[in-house]
Amino acid sequence: MNFAKLLFCGVSDLNDLRIALDLGAGGILIYPKMFEDVSQFVELMNLLKGRRVFVSCDHEGGQLETVPFVPPSPGNLLLGRTDPRFVRSYCEMAGNFLRRLGFNSVFAPVLDVKRTYSNAVVGYRSFGEDPKIVAEMGKASIEGYKSAKILSCAKHFPGHGRSRKDSHEEFEVIDASIEELQEDLLPFKEAINAKVDFVMLAHLVYSSLDTKPASISRKIVQEILREQLSFEGIVVSDAVEMKALSKRFKPSQIVQEFFNASGDMLIVSKAKNVKGYLEAIQENLQAGRIPKRMIERAIDRVNSKLVEVESDVANLFEAIEKAIEIKVSSLRPIPALLVLPDEISYSAADVSASYVATIKKQARKYLKARCISFSQVRSVDAKHLLIDLIVDASENEISLHRELSKRFPTIYIITRNPHLAEHFKGKPHVVTYSLSPLVMGYVFRKLSQLSQGGV
Amino acid sequence: MNFAKLLFCGVSDLNDLRIALDLGAGGILIYPKMFEDVSQFVELMNLLKGRRVFVSCDHEGGQLETVPFVPPSPGNLLLGRTDPRFVRSYCEMAGNFLRRLGFNSVFAPVLDVKRTYSNAVVGYRSFGEDPKIVAEMGKASIEGYKSAKILSCAKHFPGHGRSRKDSHEEFEVIDASIEELQEDLLPFKEAINAKVDFVMLAHLVYSSLDTKPASISRKIVQEILREQLSFEGIVVSDAVEMKALSKRFKPSQIVQEFFNASGDMLIVSKAKNVKGYLEAIQENLQAGRIPKRMIERAIDRVNSKLVEVESDVANLFEAIEKAIEIKVSSLRPIPALLVLPDEISYSAADVSASYVATIKKQARKYLKARCISFSQVRSVDAKHLLIDLIVDASENEISLHRELSKRFPTIYIITRNPHLAEHFKGKPHVVTYSLSPLVMGYVFRKLSQLSQGGV
Repeated sequence: MNFAKLLFCGVSDLNDLRIALDLGAGGILIYPKMFEDVSQFVELMNLLKGRRVFVSCDHEGGQLETVPFVPPSPGNLLLGRTDPRFVRSYCEMAGNFLRRLGFNSVFAPVLDVKRTYSNAVVGYRSFGEDPKIVAEMGKASIEGYKSAKILSCAKHFPGHGRSRKDSHEEFEVIDASIEELQEDLLPFKEAINAKVDFVMLAHLVYSSLDTKPASISRKIVQEILREQLSFEGIVVSDAVEMKALSKRFKPSQIVQEFFNASGDMLIVSKAKNVKGYLEAIQENLQAGRIPKRMIERAIDRVNSKLVEVESDVANLFEAIEKAIEIKVSSLRPIPALLVLPDEISYSAADVSASYVATIKKQARKYLKARCISFSQVRSVDAKHLLIDLIVDASENEISLHRELSKRFPTIYIITRNPHLAEHFKGKPHVVTYSLSPLVMGYVFRKLSQLSQGGV
Repeated sequence: MNFAKLLFCGVSDLNDLRIALDLGAGGILIYPKMFEDVSQFVELMNLLKGRRVFVSCDHEGGQLETVPFVPPSPGNLLLGRTDPRFVRSYCEMAGNFLRRLGFNSVFAPVLDVKRTYSNAVVGYRSFGEDPKIVAEMGKASIEGYKSAKILSCAKHFPGHGRSRKDSHEEFEVIDASIEELQEDLLPFKEAINAKVDFVMLAHLVYSSLDTKPASISRKIVQEILREQLSFEGIVVSDAVEMKALSKRFKPSQIVQEFFNASGDMLIVSKAKNVKGYLEAIQENLQAGRIPKRMIERAIDRVNSKLVEVESDVANLFEAIEKAIEIKVSSLRPIPALLVLPDEISYSAADVSASYVATIKKQARKYLKARCISFSQVRSVDAKHLLIDLIVDASENEISLHRELSKRFPTIYIITRNPHLAEHFKGKPHVVTYSLSPLVMGYVFRKLSQLSQGGV
């Protein structure tokens, strides 16, 4: 049994992803930081494609939009004032965009019923103050995602709308009566009828039901969600690092109570915590604190919904890998300078001027390289590695570029004019056929992996 | 006969669009400026939906990417080094994103064969230096767009790769022999076999074929493209304002020669020029300088490919219109100030902090409003209209907000907490249920339309 199937791992960079994949995590939750450099996101999707793993995000639309390329939503609070067909249409569109990027699931819709006193964390994320409308809109949302083949998630069970505090920051007890809480359950009942795939648990304590937070309450998960509401899909916790939970319970206790309550997958948002949670599952199981059949059933539920990751952007990564020619064996471990042309000729049919600012950031990020222009090279001292980016070059300019390598270890990057590569044969060089940050990020990461030994 | 069907109108803002739609233009070419404010783009698509009109863009992927929300391409020059399946996959993805946004056509792929001396305007846009590879990749591109139900356009006939200058800026004669030009035609032949919908003409002069630029050459369009290559789709000019053409020919002459050459649609990139071109068609026709059957045939070809515009983002506009409550009858024509809260509470599940900068820009753009924070109001003199944006407010704060209207004409904007609206009954106010720029842009435009008379 691979218990990592029971973890949804938060991923903010490629290292996080490698940790999660090495362990065999069942779910990958992609955080906004992953999109700061689109070349990284494309590489991530290439690592994921073909694997049987949930790839999800918090992209709810509106107040919480974490994935670029998905058109914005005016938010649930506004959509809740309209007609379910608008919700269905938005979620179908968003779902289609997400699916082509490589996602197969999304942690939406929010089914919390807003109150006048709700904390700002509920805000625009709720479909409104009427449980019936929230239920109706939630159903439309789930249907929209379904038609885009995106698994959806009703959250935050049994209803987060009565919270006056923010569970990311602190613990809270909801003192509503059982009758009052019934109102909040209505949207979840409708979601279960609509065959929602995931239900995410709140970290709040509901004093009329249990003394433990919903996310580790057998009463709330097993008795209400599983038995009364007959939910047979996957139950996920909210992130275990949220202070409402993590300040009061140790990982081992969270694990024990969550799986005994018939939870299926824990969201571990930080890669450094994943191993600890994995060990906690193992230990609890060996000590008999979680019955083996509970874990087996959770793994079965996870397996029953897993699909292979498909991603159109992963193909872009494959294409880049295929096209780029890297004729560099190693990099001298001295400070690097990215040398940019003094001037690049852009036509009206050219948006690549905006690329340069991004490329500079990428050079700093992956190669710790400062950026200078070609004419500034003369005032640089020799203890530098030059990465000389060539866009256009006359014959005379080619000589000047070639001469750099007499004074500095130099790597030439040939972009728009691949035929110029013939002038740099025998010298370390890369032919990129592109100036897109999608490509340059890849090249800089590749070079950084070579940064031992001398050019 | 509506000759406006024969014009592809460049659109940079909503006014441009209204001009084009009022005339009944056959095509709308959406320029990048339209995307500077996404709320405007969404309104544009709402105006277009349901109409039979081509909605196109210059989004080629790579060097020329004009539409946001479409994931970036590494560019044709790089893709040309790989495998046609990568081109097909990218164009299918891009096409699907474009179609859901509301486009039904795209001015791609570029089929120009790159030369070592090509102008930077060719740059990364070409699939490379081998006509066979360009042909193969072009075919894959057309197939990709077709499977996304996007009409595609082979450009720039009969091949722009030999240009050393940029036609946006200047006129150029290509002195290649007829045999040499045959090489450049190969990708277009393959595109026509693949049933490409549009062919776009270059503004270059090909001295071995004609003394006139390709875009108005009967020899090149009628004899080569129509008769020799049997192209039965729609022939479009490149933008008539490009200096290579507009510096040497008057609109009347361009119109006469283009339609006599069996061209179908002229791209008029500036709204102010549209009427002149329309009149030029009319006059040429009346004077017998263009045979009526040429115009009829062009209109038939346009009609044969027209489809109704469908757009998922147009639905968002409809939803916003339905939800927003604007209780304002008119605006006092005095300088407006947008009053923002001194502090807004954002949770970890909230990206709306980034909205505020955009909202400030929108207030400047649509209402010419400066932005101040609530606590700065006390130092403002009374000759201002206040637009008071309320996110959260305690009872005490509500009183402070209400008091503003004693000193200033004030419009209240209620966002996250719709129940607060009850405190502003009888006063001019708007309930937005959202803080998204998608919504605020709409609200500010609506208010600007009311800016006569006093609040």
